[in-house]
Amino acid sequence: MTLTPEQNAEIELARAEQTPTLRATVPALEALLYQATPLLDHGFVRVIDYMGDDAAVVQAARVSYGRGTKRVQEDRGLIKYLMRHRHSTPFEMCEIKYHVKLPIFVARQWIRHRTANVNEYSARYSILDREFYIPAPEQLAAQSLSNRQGRGDVLQGQEAAQVLDLLREDADRCYRNYAWMLNEDENGEAVDEERQGLARELARMNLTLNTYTQWYWKIDLHNLLHFLSLRADAHAQYEIRVYAEAMLETVKAWVPLTYEAFADYRLGGAHLSAAMLALIRRRLAGETVDQASSGLSKREWQELSAILDGQV
Amino acid sequence: MTLTPEQNAEIELARAEQTPTLRATVPALEALLYQATPLLDHGFVRVIDYMGDDAAVVQAARVSYGRGTKRVQEDRGLIKYLMRHRHSTPFEMCEIKYHVKLPIFVARQWIRHRTANVNEYSARYSILDREFYIPAPEQLAAQSLSNRQGRGDVLQGQEAAQVLDLLREDADRCYRNYAWMLNEDENGEAVDEERQGLARELARMNLTLNTYTQWYWKIDLHNLLHFLSLRADAHAQYEIRVYAEAMLETVKAWVPLTYEAFADYRLGGAHLSAAMLALIRRRLAGETVDQASSGLSKREWQELSAILDGQV
Amino acid sequence: MTLTPEQNAEIELARAEQTPTLRATVPALEALLYQATPLLDHGFVRVIDYMGDDAAVVQAARVSYGRGTKRVQEDRGLIKYLMRHRHSTPFEMCEIKYHVKLPIFVARQWIRHRTANVNEYSARYSILDREFYIPAPEQLAAQSLSNRQGRGDVLQGQEAAQVLDLLREDADRCYRNYAWMLNEDENGEAVDEERQGLARELARMNLTLNTYTQWYWKIDLHNLLHFLSLRADAHAQYEIRVYAEAMLETVKAWVPLTYEAFADYRLGGAHLSAAMLALIRRRLAGETVDQASSGLSKREWQELSAILDGQV
Amino acid sequence: MTLTPEQNAEIELARAEQTPTLRATVPALEALLYQATPLLDHGFVRVIDYMGDDAAVVQAARVSYGRGTKRVQEDRGLIKYLMRHRHSTPFEMCEIKYHVKLPIFVARQWIRHRTANVNEYSARYSILDREFYIPAPEQLAAQSLSNRQGRGDVLQGQEAAQVLDLLREDADRCYRNYAWMLNEDENGEAVDEERQGLARELARMNLTLNTYTQWYWKIDLHNLLHFLSLRADAHAQYEIRVYAEAMLETVKAWVPLTYEAFADYRLGGAHLSAAMLALIRRRLAGETVDQASSGLSKREWQELSAILDGQV
Repeated sequence: MTLTPEQNAEIELARAEQTPTLRATVPALEALLYQATPLLDHGFVRVIDYMGDDAAVVQAARVSYGRGTKRVQEDRGLIKYLMRHRHSTPFEMCEIKYHVKLPIFVARQWIRHRTANVNEYSARYSILDREFYIPAPEQLAAQSLSNRQGRGDVLQGQEAAQVLDLLREDADRCYRNYAWMLNEDENGEAVDEERQGLARELARMNLTLNTYTQWYWKIDLHNLLHFLSLRADAHAQYEIRVYAEAMLETVKAWVPLTYEAFADYRLGGAHLSAAMLALIRRRLAGETVDQASSGLSKREWQELSAILDGQV
Repeated sequence: MTLTPEQNAEIELARAEQTPTLRATVPALEALLYQATPLLDHGFVRVIDYMGDDAAVVQAARVSYGRGTKRVQEDRGLIKYLMRHRHSTPFEMCEIKYHVKLPIFVARQWIRHRTANVNEYSARYSILDREFYIPAPEQLAAQSLSNRQGRGDVLQGQEAAQVLDLLREDADRCYRNYAWMLNEDENGEAVDEERQGLARELARMNLTLNTYTQWYWKIDLHNLLHFLSLRADAHAQYEIRVYAEAMLETVKAWVPLTYEAFADYRLGGAHLSAAMLALIRRRLAGETVDQASSGLSKREWQELSAILDGQV
Repeated sequence: MTLTPEQNAEIELARAEQTPTLRATVPALEALLYQATPLLDHGFVRVIDYMGDDAAVVQAARVSYGRGTKRVQEDRGLIKYLMRHRHSTPFEMCEIKYHVKLPIFVARQWIRHRTANVNEYSARYSILDREFYIPAPEQLAAQSLSNRQGRGDVLQGQEAAQVLDLLREDADRCYRNYAWMLNEDENGEAVDEERQGLARELARMNLTLNTYTQWYWKIDLHNLLHFLSLRADAHAQYEIRVYAEAMLETVKAWVPLTYEAFADYRLGGAHLSAAMLALIRRRLAGETVDQASSGLSKREWQELSAILDGQV
Repeated sequence: MTLTPEQNAEIELARAEQTPTLRATVPALEALLYQATPLLDHGFVRVIDYMGDDAAVVQAARVSYGRGTKRVQEDRGLIKYLMRHRHSTPFEMCEIKYHVKLPIFVARQWIRHRTANVNEYSARYSILDREFYIPAPEQLAAQSLSNRQGRGDVLQGQEAAQVLDLLREDADRCYRNYAWMLNEDENGEAVDEERQGLARELARMNLTLNTYTQWYWKIDLHNLLHFLSLRADAHAQYEIRVYAEAMLETVKAWVPLTYEAFADYRLGGAHLSAAMLALIRRRLAGETVDQASSGLSKREWQELSAILDGQV
């Protein structure tokens, strides 16, 4: 279970207090607000706050005076046009804030997106909880043979069991020793009065990278979509992809017209090079083309085939 | 008058629609929402949307689970501590969006702050209104003799009158010729059917830099405070300072504890160099120090004197 | 003529001083360094400094220890792979600095790219030169009838002549009055001792938007390519496109392998939506599809046709 | 020893190849180029490339045409003025690139500075070396009793020995199990042919946070100085401070005038609040003030005392 009874009580409390506002409000996102979507074994993502809606994108594009038109058909067309022509600034007019709990090795990938605001739980200041990520058996994959940064088949039998044992034991022992070195109980008192206890900022170095951390993460809609297009992609590591997929659902509830355009142009679309377009033109003109005569490298040929087979 | 009857009607309409929300809401800022503060002769600034409040700053600093503590005294102390020690990320958790109408030469200074999101009215796409900034007589200053980028005494008599006439006539003539070159009426039809009309993206080059433009401008609280510390400063040009001062009022309504800390540490504070601190130590120890023996240049000596005389 | 004899002398001087360095050096870019490419009637762009080369991109991608491999074939393949898969961070490891002279209305478009470092000539501090952009007759286009932010046919005869006269006269008169209001000669002395002269920060507001300004502009290679993909595009306004095209030539000299990949994937490539890809699959399978049955809007259909006709 | 013979050979090779350039060159930094400064037990920092010098800061401030004046006294004064008045953009015109090897928990702090370009060694793609940080005995500090994120006394005797043993054993065991799970030898072949080996992107989660990683890190001078002012500060964690201090030496070699101004205004300076300034004014006027009557909180009083005692 991801949430403690205290946390659930706090969420209920937060969800009980409605106040009136003159701001743009999205009922479908209000329905999700504060509630945690459990991910992996101890992680979650939840929306803490948001600003703007589809109409705010339209309004920014028009720099019109009021709240923008209510004519949904026109708004849909304009949003699609903005998405197609990379007019990104109107999407920057919406903002969302998440509270995320995630393993440190996932956080290290995530933080590379520099256009967000972040406040992370500080292990220099506080003590981390005893929680670490252990993959579910069906996620325990071998190294891919074809892709240096991908996964192959799922490990089986003895090897799988041993790997799970090692991950569990190492994380557990490292945490126990972290706690021993700190020598603090939950009130900050010494456990063993004979010992001083190691500084928190040092003791944390003994933790393993699958230890969970948490942060508040705030980003505008344009940069969020960029993040999601990379991290909800099939090539992203599974452990970050589950977060991206859960966040896609919040985008769908928040800005449905933007989500629709994003799904069409980004998630389901593809960028083709000049050489790839030339090849498609030849094939549409009836020519039969093989890789050797295509002007594409083997790798590009495979990538284009995947796109045209609808695998992307 | 800055606002048209249509605009006033739209503001009234926007202010009439309250909806319930689970998000943090700030009644004092809701009271200002959408309403325009008139500035200069045709400009304004108004808050269009906001996210977060003082408690969101505290919550981010604590990465606590709920909405943060309600104990105002503790929150005040923590916010002051964050401000004093340049812990800027918690202030990034709040966001605000303004609609601003401003002369182009002011917009050119303003846009140098790169950490905001902007959508400006496009004179490539649309036709600008016939509105330009003419300084009030008491703002018609001579070049400062001591400061290459400052103002001196107010111009008087004949010279003042001539300057105002020239500014008015030139802006007016340039706009008339802009309109003539466009050859479009308000429905986009040709005024003179014999002429084709110059492209909007070209015709705009004939406008003077005091023509008004407008934009949506969205920024987080930390970067807003940085902007305001530079632009609400006595050294900022008057024409941008009036905007900064109006925005300071919105900050005060929105996040009163943050405003209080900002006023103490930034607006009223000063940064002293090692040499300035050494000088203060000598004076506090009873020594009489003049500029020659102070280790400061004349300019630094003057700046420190101004600080210690409370002029900053 | 764009450059004064003094400026030419300074360029010659700068080009005369070679010093030895241990840094990566690109002879083809050294050959261009400091030299100005004249653009429009008074503008120019010139490279002032640079850091890194194609090998620096490769090295960053490999985080290898030394200067990276010298095997050009492998580097070419890796750079193409990085470009294709949007691995943008290795391209951020190269940096370039330009000195640009450009009309203010072009500068206003350009500055919207926020990821660069900029120092602009300050009309608050100094006096602008008497130089403004007047389009060449073949650039004097009518408003496009089909595209609200585009150009149509070139203006002819009487209308063209009148437009050019107006542009010239208005810019000229505004500048003359700017100079009169300043009341300063080139040594900063009063021209008319009876007058005080208006502050520079105010007088500048009387200038027209085609007045030339200048700046230093520094950016990393990734963000430069993004800028160029938008501004060297056929839809960009002519007056900024000529700058982008001149800068493309400097990229070609500087990082030829990166340029090659960029030309293939970005300049000559296209992004297709899910619906566009589905349509191509149907056509490749032999089906005849018209717009009505294509699942595309009319606008999307036209855009895809343009791509498949090789117009993009 | 930090560097392998191969690495030392590569550095020697890189330092052997001088080429002529027309760019600004700094002999004192060329003397350091590529060479690694060893830090902690296995880390280092080294300069890989740079762009610009003190004259480039001056040139940007003046947007003058050539390389800027050679009059060192005037340049020194201008640079001091820019630093004092927070005119940050001219300092952005210089850029530097470092290669850094550092423990992961230090990298996690460092990466929070978002204004840099980074390429980190990828443990998703490659296998990390068996190197982890173990503090020197004199750095093995207890938790500070007064500061929740600081260090107190150095641990002694039995406790110190046990902590060092635990850190060493846990890191070592976790690494051994990481290697076992990977099941790869240095040529990428299976060690045990009966096993498939866990994907690299998963196995890495078993490593402890003191494992070393490495990256290329590129930043402009303004943002570098901001980073150094925070991380070379006495309140920064020792393990990141040693990096900041080593980088300060490279800044001193690279831009000596900027370094001098930075040392005076930032490193040795202090920001005082309005209330602190008011108190100093009263004391300079001869009044005796204690904390109760000072208008400062106890914490502020202590901080000001430390500043006036020259401890900051």
